[in-house]
Amino acid sequence: MTLGEMQTMAAHMVASVPQSQALGLTLVSVEPARGAMRVPWRADLVGEADVIAGGVVTTLIDHCCGLAAVSSFFGNISEPSIATATLDLRIDYMRPAAPRADVICEAHCYKLTRTIAFVRATAFDLDREDPVATAQAAFIVKRP
Amino acid sequence: MTLGEMQTMAAHMVASVPQSQALGLTLVSVEPARGAMRVPWRADLVGEADVIAGGVVTTLIDHCCGLAAVSSFFGNISEPSIATATLDLRIDYMRPAAPRADVICEAHCYKLTRTIAFVRATAFDLDREDPVATAQAAFIVKRP
Amino acid sequence: MTLGEMQTMAAHMVASVPQSQALGLTLVSVEPARGAMRVPWRADLVGEADVIAGGVVTTLIDHCCGLAAVSSFFGNISEPSIATATLDLRIDYMRPAAPRADVICEAHCYKLTRTIAFVRATAFDLDREDPVATAQAAFIVKRP
Amino acid sequence: MTLGEMQTMAAHMVASVPQSQALGLTLVSVEPARGAMRVPWRADLVGEADVIAGGVVTTLIDHCCGLAAVSSFFGNISEPSIATATLDLRIDYMRPAAPRADVICEAHCYKLTRTIAFVRATAFDLDREDPVATAQAAFIVKRP
Repeated sequence: MTLGEMQTMAAHMVASVPQSQALGLTLVSVEPARGAMRVPWRADLVGEADVIAGGVVTTLIDHCCGLAAVSSFFGNISEPSIATATLDLRIDYMRPAAPRADVICEAHCYKLTRTIAFVRATAFDLDREDPVATAQAAFIVKRP
Repeated sequence: MTLGEMQTMAAHMVASVPQSQALGLTLVSVEPARGAMRVPWRADLVGEADVIAGGVVTTLIDHCCGLAAVSSFFGNISEPSIATATLDLRIDYMRPAAPRADVICEAHCYKLTRTIAFVRATAFDLDREDPVATAQAAFIVKRP
Repeated sequence: MTLGEMQTMAAHMVASVPQSQALGLTLVSVEPARGAMRVPWRADLVGEADVIAGGVVTTLIDHCCGLAAVSSFFGNISEPSIATATLDLRIDYMRPAAPRADVICEAHCYKLTRTIAFVRATAFDLDREDPVATAQAAFIVKRP
Repeated sequence: MTLGEMQTMAAHMVASVPQSQALGLTLVSVEPARGAMRVPWRADLVGEADVIAGGVVTTLIDHCCGLAAVSSFFGNISEPSIATATLDLRIDYMRPAAPRADVICEAHCYKLTRTIAFVRATAFDLDREDPVATAQAAFIVKRP
């Protein structure tokens, strides 16, 4: 699978999952073991004071961690049909996003064992060194 | 505040949060320090094989834990304007829900300190002893 | 395996693990999918103000969750040699223990799938309804 | 407070906490918002097959996260007596350490708010890019 094909598949995933669609999540980038997604600011996603609601950030992180887990299998030609299921997800919330700001999530599958994919993620608005939220997740690897 | 007033306020919260509205979350019950919510099965919430998507369960749990945290202040007449912000949330996913089944979440704020509300939650479809997912969360208490 | 044999094995586990030995952890009880352990108060385990140090509570919970995971296989004659490895552990700390008080941990493996054992635990000093700490853990099941 | 004074204080902390002493934990380095500690391999810390027991790694991470949280206040002359208490700790375990290998933990307090210190940590034996365990923790900041 080429990088272009991987990107096409990821864009399709983001666009076709109903919850992702409803929030208007977009794909920022995908590469092996890494994924980034964005939730563009929208008035109807606001919790209070023009800030994107915490629950929307939760969903963004949840989906982006899944993207990183799946993308860790790209390029693995010998086992093309590997899938994952979320085993657990922990999110820490540092602060509200800035008013009217988009939120971006970057996730990295930093370790892949035979049975588990481990992912860390950071969500931020303006500066990735000043995160809105961070996450640590584990996915079960399902081999055919 | 009477129990009836608390229920009215909780029902309003569930119905007016856009993300909760979009998924059709409904209030099952609320009492001091406890809340229960349901996501009725709907074809457009399905991940695969007629099963409600994991991300929808994540959102249900996220909102229901918040409800339990807020409801732990009900009846506290001396500090009527207390609010909370999610500090962290950990969800463990046991299994997919049954095909075409609703998912219910029950959350309990089992400990409230001066600064933190601690919540545990269980999401299930048919039998609460056989959960779909469980969660442990902490909320910062914001006193006026 | 009889209940008596299970208890003998668990007592041996608690007494022979060096870290458990060093802290003086004792077995309170064990039954299928449940375990309870105690750390008796001792002057050299104190953090400050005669209270058992938080790190000691962490170790107590860590070991007790492992006991509950292992004990979920007792009675399973067809797969006698199943083992587990900790996959992840989340501990929330509610409050310091009472001065000069022992701390007890009770853990329950509430769900066992083919690959994962899910455990919840509560640590307390006097009243299990007023916990010192709670935990949620996942263990990988290793089948022969 | 100078860097030298900070290092002296951290070395004292590591050496004087009984549980840390019992396991032989040593200070690797400390700087503002960062700490590193090591558990040197020792036969009596082994779980099985000459590998340092998982519970020892848990304790190492627990202490090292606390060090990073405390060290985030160094240099803050205006509030010299700030303290912290662990609020929660999540550890993910990737793999056993190598036989007869020391384990090192590096922790970073990447965000400090008025009330919470957020810490991430990585434990490894040979290569920090191939971790033994990772952690995410939150500490309550206690201002005088």
